[in-house]
Amino acid sequence: MRVFIVHAHPEPKSFCTAMKSAAVEEFERQGHEVQVSDLYAMGFQPVASAADFGDRADPDYCTYALEQRHGLNTGTLSADIRAELDKLLWCDLLVVVFPVFWFSTPAILKGWIDRVFVSGQVYGGKRFYDRGGLVGRRALVGLTLGGQEHMFGTQGIHGPLDGMLKHLLQGTLAYAGLQVLPPFIGWHVPYVSDEARQQILETWRSRIRSVADATPLKYPSLADYDDRLHPLTADSNAV
Amino acid sequence: MRVFIVHAHPEPKSFCTAMKSAAVEEFERQGHEVQVSDLYAMGFQPVASAADFGDRADPDYCTYALEQRHGLNTGTLSADIRAELDKLLWCDLLVVVFPVFWFSTPAILKGWIDRVFVSGQVYGGKRFYDRGGLVGRRALVGLTLGGQEHMFGTQGIHGPLDGMLKHLLQGTLAYAGLQVLPPFIGWHVPYVSDEARQQILETWRSRIRSVADATPLKYPSLADYDDRLHPLTADSNAV
Repeated sequence: MRVFIVHAHPEPKSFCTAMKSAAVEEFERQGHEVQVSDLYAMGFQPVASAADFGDRADPDYCTYALEQRHGLNTGTLSADIRAELDKLLWCDLLVVVFPVFWFSTPAILKGWIDRVFVSGQVYGGKRFYDRGGLVGRRALVGLTLGGQEHMFGTQGIHGPLDGMLKHLLQGTLAYAGLQVLPPFIGWHVPYVSDEARQQILETWRSRIRSVADATPLKYPSLADYDDRLHPLTADSNAV
Repeated sequence: MRVFIVHAHPEPKSFCTAMKSAAVEEFERQGHEVQVSDLYAMGFQPVASAADFGDRADPDYCTYALEQRHGLNTGTLSADIRAELDKLLWCDLLVVVFPVFWFSTPAILKGWIDRVFVSGQVYGGKRFYDRGGLVGRRALVGLTLGGQEHMFGTQGIHGPLDGMLKHLLQGTLAYAGLQVLPPFIGWHVPYVSDEARQQILETWRSRIRSVADATPLKYPSLADYDDRLHPLTADSNAV
């Protein structure tokens, strides 16, 4: 299996970075091929702009998604985007490891998504969810956060974490066609003992060793919607 | 009223940028004071890192939130962060105008949040939701997207847009103590006629003129939770 690990943490000695390193070790030990993009270490530039395109479909007005398609078709995407896109298309499993910043990804990782999930390849037109450009691949999210699990219960103050991360799990990974495995969550990491952190790391290693057995989460299928994306229910003709 | 408009779109001639300009015009016409941070125009640097701090609480290990507090207390936050934080603390109303990228903010705006919503000032400890650092201020989100409204219905393929944006509306703005007004949504913007876009802009202008009358959305109150953030329900002692 080909595994592409994307990692984003500002502190190289962080627990989150140790999770990334443990993932590399476990996958390689199992004989898988691994590539890593450590976005902070690479100095990845996260701002999507007209500068991402060596040639322009419309030099006077940048519609980012249309320029992505043009750049893809003419081979003029910026080299850093092309390199990341190649790794993404190479992999069978995308692993994303990050600390939760504001119930989402750090900006450097958001920008990796904005720039590398290229229209015309990863999505576009009716190519999304189970018809997305990355169909046939899986995704595993491994994250750390300061919050405690009970704050994210159904009665918890924030509500379920999957709900907070819906834009990422459903709106990005599943939307692109990836089969999204249940996320691995390192709870309360900055506040627990070293022993507790070692236990989290062991659980993460074991999740990786058994990744082939994981059952993906359920997300929408385009088969349940008509051509205009109205739901195919009994009363769909009335819409 | 003091209004701080934060805007992030890569194309200065975009409809989204016209929404920002219309907002400035309407607020000023009503006699309000307005400051604008146009993040693309400013070349705002969105990557949170140790470089944000002129002096370090711990030079060997960067815990970002702890360094934010130290930077705040010692006056050594990076100048661009301090300038944005001053505008945020100055305003009565924060207006955030952006195009939806992957059911969230563009990375440059996510990085503005990561860096400017400083721990110790905007949140920290038990200071969040209705005890957050920005209590007493309101927030209005104005966004544009390619999707159509029916895709975001309860039966829609993506589910409600508020659900996709929960990390921003609840997890960021409400969490920081802001009273969040119902977001203004420019649906299907790249695909509609110029006339339809003018209509969207007029509706946006009218939302701004009547902003004083808007009723904020409901978000959690810390009064409903105990000191360990378990819900204060009949059986809370059993938790």
